[in-house]
Amino acid sequence: MNEGLEYQEELRQLAMQGDVARFLAKARGLHPSDLSDVLASLDGETQLRLVQTLPVSIVSDALAEMDDEEHPEAVLAALPSEKAADIVDELADDDAVDLIAELPADKAARILASVADRADIERLLGYDEDTAGGKMTTAVVTVLDTATVEAAIEAIREQAADAEEFYQIYCVDDTFKLVGILPFQNLIVSDPVTVVRSIMEPPLPTVTADLDQEQVAQLIARYNVPAVPVVSHFGKLLGRVTFDDVMDVMEKETTEDILKFGGAPPEEELAGTWHQAVRNRLPWLTLNLLTAFLAAAVVYFFQDMIIRVSLLAVMMPIIAGMGGNAGTQALAITVRRIAVGMIPAGRARWTVIGKELLVGLLNGIAVGIPVGLVAAVLGGQGWQLGLVVTLAMWGNLVLGTAAGAAIPLLLQRIGVDPAVASSVFVTTLTDVFGFSLLLGLAAVLLLPGV
Amino acid sequence: MNEGLEYQEELRQLAMQGDVARFLAKARGLHPSDLSDVLASLDGETQLRLVQTLPVSIVSDALAEMDDEEHPEAVLAALPSEKAADIVDELADDDAVDLIAELPADKAARILASVADRADIERLLGYDEDTAGGKMTTAVVTVLDTATVEAAIEAIREQAADAEEFYQIYCVDDTFKLVGILPFQNLIVSDPVTVVRSIMEPPLPTVTADLDQEQVAQLIARYNVPAVPVVSHFGKLLGRVTFDDVMDVMEKETTEDILKFGGAPPEEELAGTWHQAVRNRLPWLTLNLLTAFLAAAVVYFFQDMIIRVSLLAVMMPIIAGMGGNAGTQALAITVRRIAVGMIPAGRARWTVIGKELLVGLLNGIAVGIPVGLVAAVLGGQGWQLGLVVTLAMWGNLVLGTAAGAAIPLLLQRIGVDPAVASSVFVTTLTDVFGFSLLLGLAAVLLLPGV
Repeated sequence: MNEGLEYQEELRQLAMQGDVARFLAKARGLHPSDLSDVLASLDGETQLRLVQTLPVSIVSDALAEMDDEEHPEAVLAALPSEKAADIVDELADDDAVDLIAELPADKAARILASVADRADIERLLGYDEDTAGGKMTTAVVTVLDTATVEAAIEAIREQAADAEEFYQIYCVDDTFKLVGILPFQNLIVSDPVTVVRSIMEPPLPTVTADLDQEQVAQLIARYNVPAVPVVSHFGKLLGRVTFDDVMDVMEKETTEDILKFGGAPPEEELAGTWHQAVRNRLPWLTLNLLTAFLAAAVVYFFQDMIIRVSLLAVMMPIIAGMGGNAGTQALAITVRRIAVGMIPAGRARWTVIGKELLVGLLNGIAVGIPVGLVAAVLGGQGWQLGLVVTLAMWGNLVLGTAAGAAIPLLLQRIGVDPAVASSVFVTTLTDVFGFSLLLGLAAVLLLPGV
Repeated sequence: MNEGLEYQEELRQLAMQGDVARFLAKARGLHPSDLSDVLASLDGETQLRLVQTLPVSIVSDALAEMDDEEHPEAVLAALPSEKAADIVDELADDDAVDLIAELPADKAARILASVADRADIERLLGYDEDTAGGKMTTAVVTVLDTATVEAAIEAIREQAADAEEFYQIYCVDDTFKLVGILPFQNLIVSDPVTVVRSIMEPPLPTVTADLDQEQVAQLIARYNVPAVPVVSHFGKLLGRVTFDDVMDVMEKETTEDILKFGGAPPEEELAGTWHQAVRNRLPWLTLNLLTAFLAAAVVYFFQDMIIRVSLLAVMMPIIAGMGGNAGTQALAITVRRIAVGMIPAGRARWTVIGKELLVGLLNGIAVGIPVGLVAAVLGGQGWQLGLVVTLAMWGNLVLGTAAGAAIPLLLQRIGVDPAVASSVFVTTLTDVFGFSLLLGLAAVLLLPGV
């Protein structure tokens, strides 16, 4: 690893000295993923100079490997349209689409005007980028199902030259309908005169272009296939999505889920600047502030109680906090159950809430009793204060735990992404409910005594 | 999808009726992943009866596809050792190891005693299950780098029969040292007399058996390779880890990270029973209770202040809540930056905290001023109360945001998994600090006035 880092540092130095010849000599031995790191670490001016002098094929490989956050489209945008088009021509069509989609419309149009295979790219641009269509490449290797192994090998040979890496050979009929998948190993162990149809395997799974990328990822993980063919509603082969595209999707979805869970804006770039962070997070905090006022309003309403029994103010953070924690636990479990497809179908889904309710009832009583005892001893209000605290704690844990499960399930039911049910949302609920229970019960059960 | 579900329901019915012949006829058309769902959904008795009568190869395929949470090892454990050993013999060695590792030691030993290729399995059992060694299969397809393409194809043909699916052909020298990787497409487009060495590609990346599985996943995602070869410290080929194993790892790590973030026990099974959930979560809640008492202690100390200025109790949940939210946002961002390897190296890592500190300073003042104004108007204590609230809010957001970034970075620095820094931990901190600031400042700035 460290060796690689030193190598990258050397390349960075050469680039900054403008020594393109030596840079090129060294860069040839580097994997495009590593070269893309070097490119991304350079300042804009050095980057532009380098990209203009390096061979187009090397630049396109490196751009394809850049992370979204390293903004490869900005590199493209800085170039003259003709040069940018040459680079786009070298890119795999799915990578080209990813870059073009990020560019301003006029710049994109100017570059596309000079791109040779723009028809493919323009068609792919028509798909929603979060679907199988948006993630697929049209570069597929196909053989006719009626061909012999010998003819198939010849056909593959012809296509392999300009195909990207491929892991599956698709068998189509004469209308380009996908009828099977031919594993390399079947091809290699078969007699040259064997007909493809007799050694191909059923095309399972396939997806349509409009399927959501997360579901494509789940299929690839479930069936352990390196790629999944994309077909039209009539079964015609359109392209393929590969495992590596799907791994990127999984990583991005995880980031989004954790940011949402933490009440952070899911569109915040992980390596963004401080002013982007301030601008992105402030609206979320403001929204949270409004909900926090709800909890404060409950306390405001019961101020008299607090003046008379100040130990209630001491108990407030415990009741609210524990309800919030229990709710966040249930929320985390439920959000993941939904994400990995582990929620029972139909009415059985509501058993999930039943289970959490039971967990809340039991854990609520387990933590409610000791805290109630402490309150009874410290409060100097007799056993009544202890009872109020125990009941409030119990009730808040039951509500928190049940809500932690119910909220994401309800959101999913009505077609909203359940991950937006952040921990912040649940803790506001347990704040409001916990304070209401604690102070309300105190008003009912303690007032005669104080 | 629904069609598949109906098909599975039909199979379940046949299994429960004990109609193995018709079950078998139908099951042959099913992907092992789908068959494993059917098997997992049966009660223990039906499952056992079915597994004992189905052909061993079908059972082993289905067990290999079961999720951990469906406990395929329990199916194995219920069988007589001889039968279980037959199934293990059919399994890929990495899948066999996963099952055997979950069994009680005596049961595992009894089964292994009858397994034919137990040497491989016992060697794999020696690796930590979270490393490349624990995830790899020893089933690799190799060719000598000095062979011709024609001889290589013959060698592959011989190995392909009992190899699982493979996506890469490994080129080794006569000491079994890995010297290159031969893509299928290079093989297929080359002349039969070409020497393998001239068409192979450098073996990049490779991993050693002790590398953590998460890093293996990152390498596969980074270099877009369907498999990564595992080598000894002397470069000898030991096995390979494939993309599908790594996708399972990614999914499990995401679950663990979200559970930890939510303060839930990461070992809780997503589909576990209510009593497992109660038992797993209660220790975490008890720990949280102890920390909640810290926040309560601060309020206990300042009870007199609250009795005199009860609006302070109203402001408590707002100050604590907003600090917690800002902290959770920073925590979510930082935990993900660490997980995807986006923290700068060396001293530059601390710039991450600097950025968050700045974000806290700016967002803190932005939400602190309006809340302070509200407090000044409602409190009837003049501008001083407003100042106290604004300063407490500001300070708590600065601390929360900085701590959200600093805690996981510090944990990582000292070699502890940064994901254990759950949102619960940060919100406790902001509760304690927020209350101390609010009530402490009030004691200093308001006392002369009240």
